[in-house]
Amino acid sequence: MDVRAAIALEAGKPLVVDTVQLDGPKAGEVLVEIKATGLCHTDKYTLSGADPEGIFPSILGHEGAGIVVDVGPGVTSLKKGDHVIPLYTPECRQCKSCNSHKTNLCTAIRATQGKGLMPDGTSRFSYKGKPVMHYMGCSTFANYTVMPEIALAKVREDAPFDKICYIGCGVTTGIGAVLFTAKVEAGANVVVFGLGGIGLNVIQGAKMVGANMIVGVDVNPAREQMARGFGMTHFVNPKEIQGDLVAHLVELTGGGADYSFECVGNTTLMRQALECCHRGWGVSTIIGVAAAGQEISTRPFQLVTGRRWQGTAFGGARGRTQVPQIVDWYMDKKIEIDSLITHVMPLEKINDGFDLMTRGESIRGVVVF
Amino acid sequence: MDVRAAIALEAGKPLVVDTVQLDGPKAGEVLVEIKATGLCHTDKYTLSGADPEGIFPSILGHEGAGIVVDVGPGVTSLKKGDHVIPLYTPECRQCKSCNSHKTNLCTAIRATQGKGLMPDGTSRFSYKGKPVMHYMGCSTFANYTVMPEIALAKVREDAPFDKICYIGCGVTTGIGAVLFTAKVEAGANVVVFGLGGIGLNVIQGAKMVGANMIVGVDVNPAREQMARGFGMTHFVNPKEIQGDLVAHLVELTGGGADYSFECVGNTTLMRQALECCHRGWGVSTIIGVAAAGQEISTRPFQLVTGRRWQGTAFGGARGRTQVPQIVDWYMDKKIEIDSLITHVMPLEKINDGFDLMTRGESIRGVVVF
Repeated sequence: MDVRAAIALEAGKPLVVDTVQLDGPKAGEVLVEIKATGLCHTDKYTLSGADPEGIFPSILGHEGAGIVVDVGPGVTSLKKGDHVIPLYTPECRQCKSCNSHKTNLCTAIRATQGKGLMPDGTSRFSYKGKPVMHYMGCSTFANYTVMPEIALAKVREDAPFDKICYIGCGVTTGIGAVLFTAKVEAGANVVVFGLGGIGLNVIQGAKMVGANMIVGVDVNPAREQMARGFGMTHFVNPKEIQGDLVAHLVELTGGGADYSFECVGNTTLMRQALECCHRGWGVSTIIGVAAAGQEISTRPFQLVTGRRWQGTAFGGARGRTQVPQIVDWYMDKKIEIDSLITHVMPLEKINDGFDLMTRGESIRGVVVF
Repeated sequence: MDVRAAIALEAGKPLVVDTVQLDGPKAGEVLVEIKATGLCHTDKYTLSGADPEGIFPSILGHEGAGIVVDVGPGVTSLKKGDHVIPLYTPECRQCKSCNSHKTNLCTAIRATQGKGLMPDGTSRFSYKGKPVMHYMGCSTFANYTVMPEIALAKVREDAPFDKICYIGCGVTTGIGAVLFTAKVEAGANVVVFGLGGIGLNVIQGAKMVGANMIVGVDVNPAREQMARGFGMTHFVNPKEIQGDLVAHLVELTGGGADYSFECVGNTTLMRQALECCHRGWGVSTIIGVAAAGQEISTRPFQLVTGRRWQGTAFGGARGRTQVPQIVDWYMDKKIEIDSLITHVMPLEKINDGFDLMTRGESIRGVVVF
């Protein structure tokens, strides 16, 4: 079938909006009509060519929401008409990782997904007669896509696509890091590095679980107002701190953060986020994705004296189980999404959306089909 | 009073065994007759002068066992005749750290202890009329020492001093890292870097809690036999591995260690210990103390994909509460100590004991008074 898509033809070039061909779902696969998709920094990173695992040509996009149109043989948990959120981290409930109950990093389709292919080792997309690769197992920059059944979360039908698409990545990544990975408890002091789309969701996650101090750190003073609206209690602009930022944060929090989060992807901030943690028990969680080849470092003394360093992907969320919960929290107004979606555009304007991101003007841009 | 002690007069020189003067216990303090003391790498490190926090002259030693001889005003939990193990990590049960229930790193007397002083800011030791500093709050290289009440674990009286002194540091550090810090569970696969006094105790801790594979890594093939006796199931000599050690360990453990432990203090091994952990949930615990100024590093991807990096001091044990338990485990033969104590000597031979350690010939040398 013909579908409308923004195609990443080559690294470093704008996306090309055109008609591509999509084959129907094979066994265990589902055809989804994408109704809305967010634009994420990870799409931009891959498009730039800096991602060594980036493959071209491909259909980017991994933060979508839509409706099941057709299912392939053997699909039992979804049917035509179901509302779904694509999951770049699937949940097969069968593999060693899923059955460990210790991680959300399902490995069922990891090998093929990393190569831009469906689990059978082929692509469903083609353009001008040549295969086009899938991306993060989702490819939501198209108005129809094919997904494995295990990579779709079924969600309630009264939730608006143009908002809950953001739960497909940013919201879950930020809130999940607090709830599922760090397991922040009520009364804790939290420090958040970076007040973009992820950091604001970390803040509302921390507020949701009853954190005490929620300190936001960002060099952009324009972020302060919105972050306070989401629950930030203290704002620290490193440019305005005289002396050492870590020492300032330790003093501000009365000994250090119980939990810190790095939401930028900057290895210098990752170190500061660890070292501003409280001696004895502070836990620092890396959310941001650093550029290829970069490394984090610290003195081992920081760990021997009780700080812990960890990371999270997709907020530690098991997608099919917990993404529907997060949609419920949004519908119940326990969390806020609407104000984070600062720009909505048609597919034809998708490159403008990435320009807004580059200039730091948007929190989240969303394409509606 | 006159006491016999091995004095660290200056960095890099052998200890001098001579008579020093010891003042009696002040308020909250206890006079302890030391009956036996282990020789630990940390004593050697400080004596070498490489420890930037080392203070001279001082009475080293922090791994002892003895009997209460006298108590100062206000001491309520100990009385003359009690058997005790000195604690370089005290347990006041009053400070923010103790009350957090998240760490064993009591801060009640941290400031003065780090300066080689008793909590009132003075030293009880003197030599030829000049003050001599305490060390790690213990100074067990003397047949009598003065300790704060909160830094003494009361233990059963039928336990032999020349064995349980080792619980004052090495045994608790290794076993505690497994039980209290990493909380290894039955069936887990464990990798241990370094099969010295700490590593062997990690191995017996892992065996005690029912670990599945217990892989020991050491360049010294002479360590294999004893380690197998303590529960090691697989031995890896990095010198005999062709190709990448981390890849070898990941393959050997069927995907990576559930828990790894670095027991050497080598930052390269610390990185390998992290990176050989299982994707999704592997936890690496640093036990070894690296030389001043050295740093650990890795790609943040290692953490974002679910590995966690942490450290431990004194095995995460709360000394007054858990050291008596470990003494019970020894007396009940749940853990083994005797064969680890390879050399026993009088105080006059203490420098020979450090020479044995330097040459890698001893697991643990113990001085008996």
